[in-house]
Amino acid sequence: MQQHARFETVTLITPTARMAPSVHGGRAKCLQRLVRLGFNVPTTVALSFDAVHEIALGKAPPVAEILEPFGPAPLLCVRPSSQDQDWGGPSAILNIGMNDARHARLCESIGEEAANALYLRFIQSYAEHVARLDPDLFHLPDTPTAEAVAAMRALYEEEMEEPFPDTPEVQLAEVLRSMARAWKGTSARLLRQSKGAPADAGLGLVVQALALGVGPGESGSGVIAFVNSETGEPQITGRYLRQSQGREALSVSSGALYITRDARGKSLEEEAPEAFAELVAAGELSRIRLREEMQVEFTIDSGRVAILDAVRLPRGPRAAVKIAVELASDGIIARDEAVMRVPASALTALLHPQVDPGARRDVVARGIAASPGAATGRLVLTAQEAQEGEARGEPCILIRRETSPEDIRGMQAAEGIITIRGGMTSHAAVIGRGIGLPCVVGAGDLSIDRQGHVQAPGGRVLKPGDWVTIDGSTGEILAGEAKLIEAGMDDSFRTLLTWADQHRDIGVRANADTPGDAQVARRFEAEGIGLCRTEHMFFEDGRIGLMREVIFSETEEESKAVLSRLLPLQRGDFIRLFEIMQGQPVCIRLFDPPLHEFLPTDKRGLKDMAEGLGKPFADVQARVEALTEYNPMLGMRGVRLGIAVPQIYEMQARAIFEAAIEAGRAGEPVVPEIMIPLVSAAKEVEVVKGMVEAVAAAVRSETGATFDYRLGVMVETPRAALRAADIAAHASFLSFGTNDLTQMAYGLSRDDAGRFMGAYVRRGVYEEDPFHLLDVEGVGELLQIGAARGRATRPDITVAICGEHGGSPRAIEFCRGERFTYVSCSPYRVPVARLSAAQLAIAERQARSN
Amino acid sequence: MQQHARFETVTLITPTARMAPSVHGGRAKCLQRLVRLGFNVPTTVALSFDAVHEIALGKAPPVAEILEPFGPAPLLCVRPSSQDQDWGGPSAILNIGMNDARHARLCESIGEEAANALYLRFIQSYAEHVARLDPDLFHLPDTPTAEAVAAMRALYEEEMEEPFPDTPEVQLAEVLRSMARAWKGTSARLLRQSKGAPADAGLGLVVQALALGVGPGESGSGVIAFVNSETGEPQITGRYLRQSQGREALSVSSGALYITRDARGKSLEEEAPEAFAELVAAGELSRIRLREEMQVEFTIDSGRVAILDAVRLPRGPRAAVKIAVELASDGIIARDEAVMRVPASALTALLHPQVDPGARRDVVARGIAASPGAATGRLVLTAQEAQEGEARGEPCILIRRETSPEDIRGMQAAEGIITIRGGMTSHAAVIGRGIGLPCVVGAGDLSIDRQGHVQAPGGRVLKPGDWVTIDGSTGEILAGEAKLIEAGMDDSFRTLLTWADQHRDIGVRANADTPGDAQVARRFEAEGIGLCRTEHMFFEDGRIGLMREVIFSETEEESKAVLSRLLPLQRGDFIRLFEIMQGQPVCIRLFDPPLHEFLPTDKRGLKDMAEGLGKPFADVQARVEALTEYNPMLGMRGVRLGIAVPQIYEMQARAIFEAAIEAGRAGEPVVPEIMIPLVSAAKEVEVVKGMVEAVAAAVRSETGATFDYRLGVMVETPRAALRAADIAAHASFLSFGTNDLTQMAYGLSRDDAGRFMGAYVRRGVYEEDPFHLLDVEGVGELLQIGAARGRATRPDITVAICGEHGGSPRAIEFCRGERFTYVSCSPYRVPVARLSAAQLAIAERQARSN
Repeated sequence: MQQHARFETVTLITPTARMAPSVHGGRAKCLQRLVRLGFNVPTTVALSFDAVHEIALGKAPPVAEILEPFGPAPLLCVRPSSQDQDWGGPSAILNIGMNDARHARLCESIGEEAANALYLRFIQSYAEHVARLDPDLFHLPDTPTAEAVAAMRALYEEEMEEPFPDTPEVQLAEVLRSMARAWKGTSARLLRQSKGAPADAGLGLVVQALALGVGPGESGSGVIAFVNSETGEPQITGRYLRQSQGREALSVSSGALYITRDARGKSLEEEAPEAFAELVAAGELSRIRLREEMQVEFTIDSGRVAILDAVRLPRGPRAAVKIAVELASDGIIARDEAVMRVPASALTALLHPQVDPGARRDVVARGIAASPGAATGRLVLTAQEAQEGEARGEPCILIRRETSPEDIRGMQAAEGIITIRGGMTSHAAVIGRGIGLPCVVGAGDLSIDRQGHVQAPGGRVLKPGDWVTIDGSTGEILAGEAKLIEAGMDDSFRTLLTWADQHRDIGVRANADTPGDAQVARRFEAEGIGLCRTEHMFFEDGRIGLMREVIFSETEEESKAVLSRLLPLQRGDFIRLFEIMQGQPVCIRLFDPPLHEFLPTDKRGLKDMAEGLGKPFADVQARVEALTEYNPMLGMRGVRLGIAVPQIYEMQARAIFEAAIEAGRAGEPVVPEIMIPLVSAAKEVEVVKGMVEAVAAAVRSETGATFDYRLGVMVETPRAALRAADIAAHASFLSFGTNDLTQMAYGLSRDDAGRFMGAYVRRGVYEEDPFHLLDVEGVGELLQIGAARGRATRPDITVAICGEHGGSPRAIEFCRGERFTYVSCSPYRVPVARLSAAQLAIAERQARSN
Repeated sequence: MQQHARFETVTLITPTARMAPSVHGGRAKCLQRLVRLGFNVPTTVALSFDAVHEIALGKAPPVAEILEPFGPAPLLCVRPSSQDQDWGGPSAILNIGMNDARHARLCESIGEEAANALYLRFIQSYAEHVARLDPDLFHLPDTPTAEAVAAMRALYEEEMEEPFPDTPEVQLAEVLRSMARAWKGTSARLLRQSKGAPADAGLGLVVQALALGVGPGESGSGVIAFVNSETGEPQITGRYLRQSQGREALSVSSGALYITRDARGKSLEEEAPEAFAELVAAGELSRIRLREEMQVEFTIDSGRVAILDAVRLPRGPRAAVKIAVELASDGIIARDEAVMRVPASALTALLHPQVDPGARRDVVARGIAASPGAATGRLVLTAQEAQEGEARGEPCILIRRETSPEDIRGMQAAEGIITIRGGMTSHAAVIGRGIGLPCVVGAGDLSIDRQGHVQAPGGRVLKPGDWVTIDGSTGEILAGEAKLIEAGMDDSFRTLLTWADQHRDIGVRANADTPGDAQVARRFEAEGIGLCRTEHMFFEDGRIGLMREVIFSETEEESKAVLSRLLPLQRGDFIRLFEIMQGQPVCIRLFDPPLHEFLPTDKRGLKDMAEGLGKPFADVQARVEALTEYNPMLGMRGVRLGIAVPQIYEMQARAIFEAAIEAGRAGEPVVPEIMIPLVSAAKEVEVVKGMVEAVAAAVRSETGATFDYRLGVMVETPRAALRAADIAAHASFLSFGTNDLTQMAYGLSRDDAGRFMGAYVRRGVYEEDPFHLLDVEGVGELLQIGAARGRATRPDITVAICGEHGGSPRAIEFCRGERFTYVSCSPYRVPVARLSAAQLAIAERQARSN
């Protein structure tokens, strides 16, 4: 509050007035800049946050002080001025000061009809926003007559049981009081908090002499901008409406003029070329001097241009990137400022197709927005149908109760996925994000009936073959084929990320399981692969059959024989990955899932499998039953399986080493990273390390080749984090798997959490869904403990994060703070991660230098 | 090692020799005490641990020094002397010094046949234990002739290709070297470590002049003790064999004399009354002066008694208690020493029937020893049959693939339980321990075929109705009806625990769900109930139907109406518990399991339920499917369910408060403790606290009664431990549920761990099964963190443990160290916990005063 003492609570805006956005709000500060640039801005007085706060608490508004610069019988408007324009505020109120005397004078100057119109508008907005009367009672008549004015005044006085206030002093005082109180209301507070405002955000107000826009000669009001708000390309846009006030030009359906010459009708450029030229010049000047693309609100009064207000041009994500890069390229802002100006979340939208914001959205149901981007296609119910659709060149949306590894081919064939069950980290969601496929999960309002029709709320039905659209960024499922706009990573985007990388001080790798993933990772300039889940490789055609043979092997020799047939396939996978990554690090996680994931879940599938394996059905059923687990997430998987059935890890280690030799022949030497999953005790690492070393020695001796590799641990149980000091003795890196770590810290299965997570977060029981936003307080402490203890044993140990959280700004902020070596995330999140990391580094540097 | 320097490495045992069990071993020290008591002990020399260690490393034994006290041409024996007699050691070797010359002299003194017999025995044991020749080659002939001696010497020399050593020096040196090396062998080391010896435990040796026991007049050897080794009651026992050496009297099948007058045959008491009286006097003296019940090894040489050795009488658990209490009651030892002398684990055996140690054990299969005690009965396959068997008065052993809550009635009806799946904390194991029912789980070698026959390894088959016996203390399943010995908690037992309680400094409560459990808890003098799992109350007859109605309620009103019918039943449960516990604290855990546990798992059961509920089968099936979880352990249960379906907790809180008022009318005011399960965030506690407070206010206002209660949290997720500072703000106690905490720290389901835990522990991947022994390093740290943070917020907060680990000495040691308020365990483990806790307190006090 000390800082505020330097400022006046009521300030006439002059080129030299002392003003600050944190005291008077952004609009007031911007208006002062416009004044300083010499624009014709009507007389304006700013009220500080403190002044408005006191009015809200009941103090009488300092009306006399405010009115002083406006002279006698003024006409005024009042607008909100919050610190950030996105935080909003109460509606502007125009024409304050209107009364019978003023009306009479206006009848003379601008004519009776125009004067009536202004008077009516004032009574209407005063009734609605200040007196808080039912807005449905106060309609503007088609023809603004004196009778209409009298009738509306009478209606007001009847409703309020008191006279309509007639003096500018009373009117202004009431308007200020009303706006100050509206800001303190609960719904307004919640709304602005949702946009990032702090709970105690202040409101300033600006009181401005009204530029009429109504009257003789070229009079009217409008809005102008100088780039396209979606593309960011230079383009003068806006609208102008003769005989109008405020932003009316934007809301009328006809009658407005185009701004620039246009074949469809009249334009300001043609009708008032001088005013137009003045506005264009103002735009150029303000871009350079205000260092931003502005949207300017103006009035023309009898041919004279007045600038009433200017705000940062609201913009789509693509425009945000383009504008920032262009401002920096033109030397108007610094490159690091350009990096700071683009919200990292905006990039996500650029990487996937979106539903056209102008398209009609016929929302049938909602689910969890699990993988961003929009897709449209014909509804299919099975993976098989999706593959058939792809073969016919027909786009499909696959809906499943939930997906399983058997559906992967069908998912790859589909344009998008809907599941009825599951959460942010269900199978469908993880795969969807991994391959950049739009996905809506947990759409629990949908059900599939016996006829194979999808029943939606309100009795609506979607049938197979119907066109549907999903929006994986909002979680909406739309009926029909909505118009989409394409994704793009254009030059500006690339430039911005290049600048970002110059500031970034934490590595960004991608989670990539397939060559396709790896190519996306390269395209988005990931610095290697932080998590390659090898098990997906076993679900591919032809391989799942071999995995089943391994499961049904009766001797170790038999399973080794089957694995030896998998070896060349797996080696081929790794060779392709290494080749694509061109010497960048590739961290391969050894086999993780429980074996039962490779088995069919229904009787039909079991019968087919028994036939395929040539085994009696009863034997197959018994084996499947024996593999069933109460809590598969906490069962026989990861390193436990690796130790129990060592031949699987041995085969994988061999495939990795042989692939590294092969891929290293052509280019850079490959130093593969091998990661052990689900470790809970150091001894597990010791055992696997022994196995892997033995395989490495065998491959070296067989091939005569030399190669290096790194062995590390995926820290995904709380105990592994606690025992990181022991574990680090055998590991050259620790990579935190925050999905499982979150599950275990909370005792909460990610697949089962969907049923109540929404309600839990809404009630504030959990601040956020911890599978979506890293739980810094709980899971984060396990990361801190693990990192600190690992480093105590081995100071140069690599520490990283490779869970689904890896790409989120919160996780990156946390990992930077803990000096992690890198984060690894879905390939499609790599650009966001690069930008977020750079912004954090820049913000930290700025905070230090302040 | 400095301490050892004060001692000789070779010491002649005299009344004033400096000897210590930690230097020369227990046997040497005991012999010295016998010498000091004035008993006729043959000349004895003790070799220290250091001396034997050096011999094992290759140093020449100090034979001259050892032989010096024995004079020329001695006959000797050598026995091991480890620090604790239970740690064992190599076999004693007698008759060292025997050679042709000595043999000739013995022929004169004791006759040729006796001399031959000694010579043959020496060659035989030298060949077996020193030369390590095949023992099958060296048989003692029926008649010990000179030819037999010559033949055995020749055989020795042929096998060894060298002459039999003839000088006492060489013989002794070889015997010492052989025994020293045997101690260092791997199998000997593992064996003694299994009995609690440290890895570097030392071995002493005692070299004693041989008391022949063979020769003219009353000559022989025997063993005598003065109390019954199973009951501890005064009773002179033992055997005596004329013309024998060492412990031969114990191993021959006929010919030995009874010790006391006996109708069945001759006795030492009658045949040699003076020697008998001397031995009885020696027993009395040694009990008083050695402060222990001893088993004495003696020889009579021509009527003269020599005491060769005395060891602490090996004893069964009941005798251990009785002997300790009697020694203290007689003022021979202090009461705290009596408490220290009974191994806590011995008590467990006293609380349950045991298979008679002398009975034949026809082991059919093995599983996990999940609930101690033995039981015998006819095999049944279903809970229904077990109940029918009980109705007929026919004891049954119930075998199930795994048990579920629906089996509880049948389990209560059975004498014991076998399951094929599951681990130490599976449903069967937890229930078994809770109700004191012997239980073997995870007997994976068994399978039940289509005919309902139990297939066991080796092609054996158990059919329903066959008699079987299970030993829940060893995990064995025996064919037939093995002889059992009954359980008992006699006066000595009670006395010992009373003494223990005077030293104990941590509370011991019981986990008790039912009035029956509570009665057992009172019987074993638990200090309250630390965990009352309320959900078991819902599985009882008639109630599970109501729970199903709750689940299938379509509105909140409907479910409240059903719950209001459960309320009086639940209130009745609590009234009975409070009445039984007579004002002691009762900690009631609110409803915890997922709802699907109340639903049948098979189609038949579903159909029945649908009929019972009067709902379409399809609806019932759909609801059941919707409730199915991927990982029920990590799903919608505990406080999550309490928040989602608040009417359940509200009903329970009301039942608790109303019961407290009702039970408090009759006796002490009842202050119930209410515990919230599965908490992972402080806000969850805040929400439930609000609900419970509202119910308390309502009950107070309705009844006009006043009552207090305490609200606390079951800390069973890692995050709850980490966030204990926040949680403690709303909780008056924290009770660690180490079962779930272990599952989540390891990422390991207790029900699924059985499949590999055995192999994991055998390979040393996990040091111990963490569900069996508290994982101090990992889970323990979470307890430390939770306790410390909870106390930081609320210094007087009650901190406790209520998992299955609660009764184990390791957990008690840990919880004492962390100053926990109490441990809570199965009622049947309460005595063990009381004794363990007292022993730890005494040991700590002793360590401090040393």
